[in-house]
Amino acid sequence: MAKSFTDLLRVPDTLVDLAKVPADAHPGVKSKKDAGQAMPKLGERLADLQEQLFAQARGGTRPGHASVLLVLQGMDTSGKGGTVKHVTGVMDPGGLRITSFKAPTEEELTHDFLWRIRKALPAAGQVGVFDRSHYEDVLVVRVRNLVPREQWEPRYGLINEFEQELADLGTTVVKCFLHISRDEQKERLLARLADPTKLWKYNPGDVDERKLWPAYQEAYAAALNLTSTATAPWFVIPADRKWYRNFAITQLLIETLERVNPQWPPPDYDVAKEKKRVLES
Amino acid sequence: MAKSFTDLLRVPDTLVDLAKVPADAHPGVKSKKDAGQAMPKLGERLADLQEQLFAQARGGTRPGHASVLLVLQGMDTSGKGGTVKHVTGVMDPGGLRITSFKAPTEEELTHDFLWRIRKALPAAGQVGVFDRSHYEDVLVVRVRNLVPREQWEPRYGLINEFEQELADLGTTVVKCFLHISRDEQKERLLARLADPTKLWKYNPGDVDERKLWPAYQEAYAAALNLTSTATAPWFVIPADRKWYRNFAITQLLIETLERVNPQWPPPDYDVAKEKKRVLES
Repeated sequence: MAKSFTDLLRVPDTLVDLAKVPADAHPGVKSKKDAGQAMPKLGERLADLQEQLFAQARGGTRPGHASVLLVLQGMDTSGKGGTVKHVTGVMDPGGLRITSFKAPTEEELTHDFLWRIRKALPAAGQVGVFDRSHYEDVLVVRVRNLVPREQWEPRYGLINEFEQELADLGTTVVKCFLHISRDEQKERLLARLADPTKLWKYNPGDVDERKLWPAYQEAYAAALNLTSTATAPWFVIPADRKWYRNFAITQLLIETLERVNPQWPPPDYDVAKEKKRVLES
Repeated sequence: MAKSFTDLLRVPDTLVDLAKVPADAHPGVKSKKDAGQAMPKLGERLADLQEQLFAQARGGTRPGHASVLLVLQGMDTSGKGGTVKHVTGVMDPGGLRITSFKAPTEEELTHDFLWRIRKALPAAGQVGVFDRSHYEDVLVVRVRNLVPREQWEPRYGLINEFEQELADLGTTVVKCFLHISRDEQKERLLARLADPTKLWKYNPGDVDERKLWPAYQEAYAAALNLTSTATAPWFVIPADRKWYRNFAITQLLIETLERVNPQWPPPDYDVAKEKKRVLES
């Protein structure tokens, strides 16, 4: 039997050197054409599972509290926004909660780093999506020395505790690092500058961040190592090819939802009696 | 030239008797097949306009503050949720803000009826979608006498003031009444009761509401009459046919966004200089 994407893409337990992980690989599928042909059915499957998760939390006498949280991290232009658009596009927006985290506001900075994260968690039955997340507090914060080491270093442990708590309360966390190569990022930045309809997506600050590429890769490797747990593992998604990125994350979400295994809730009313009432109305 | 959907579907200025408006009509398009063939291009057009609205509010030195708010109202099973799913499915979720209003919470009831509405408004550049809205406060509230007449009656005027204020602040409001026939509602309720994967969507309270059909139609007619303004007109969408409902609302959104006419923002940086910086990085 083919290996699951959960197994194929999970970060290995040993320290990971990101430079050695090819960003243009496509494990688990032969070609763009094969992935493209599979996508419509996968989209339907994902939509069905999402509806069932949503229904389980709503109907019946014993609503389930399961939810799923997809965390997306990656360098600028790695495709976090594109993933949100393409992977969630097939799902019902009523069952989605999508949050894009920017630099924290003044108010957010007066709280602990998980405060704004907790406020954005998916409700029971929802699929939450984080475009950036609490991981920024051990990524840009570490690389840019935004707080001293004695403040960011304990965060790895705090994150593990937090994610364990989420799991205990019914939220399955799926963490995806969108892995692009340094060359691919250059291409994508140049493409933005070459297209009048993409100029607004470009920010001169992106080049400043790019110059810190090695420091960021190191910070990502540390985060992947220190916070990939059995409860909330990290997945490294080769993301130089957008089609593979979308395909792989769709597969991961399907596999995750299949493990959550949501059930249609039993009706909390008498179906035959209600049919009669409707017919007579 | 063909009439716009904005003209075709706008509530007439004269008092409307909803029973006389056919719910299975399909003005502006010959057949389901024609609509289906047009939809992919319309979806692309809508997605492009949404991106441009979003971009306009973000980039450049003089961000625009325009946003759009789609308000969906209609009887149970009229397809509000389905509209959200199909019409917004083509758009980028980052530029969408979708809110489904339920019975107000205790906290919400301690405030004026527009308090929770204001909190859910789209940000600059977003397309907001309300599945139910402030109109419930002159619909179910009126039909069920949830507050005395002297409290709900002034709300028509308050709503008009509120929507004028929204327009003045840059939000274009598009209000759609999903018009289904009483027979079609019966079919849809029975369909829910006949399908194990749809039982969770059924609520015995739906039949209680259905028994008040004439009172609801009267309350809807009053709302359409008293709050359809030049600034924020109501549209009556024949909604017995789901394909027409999705097609017509997509057209209305496109026409609305074309009137808003968002522009790609000019870059607030030197493009040539940035190209050089990226190439050297």
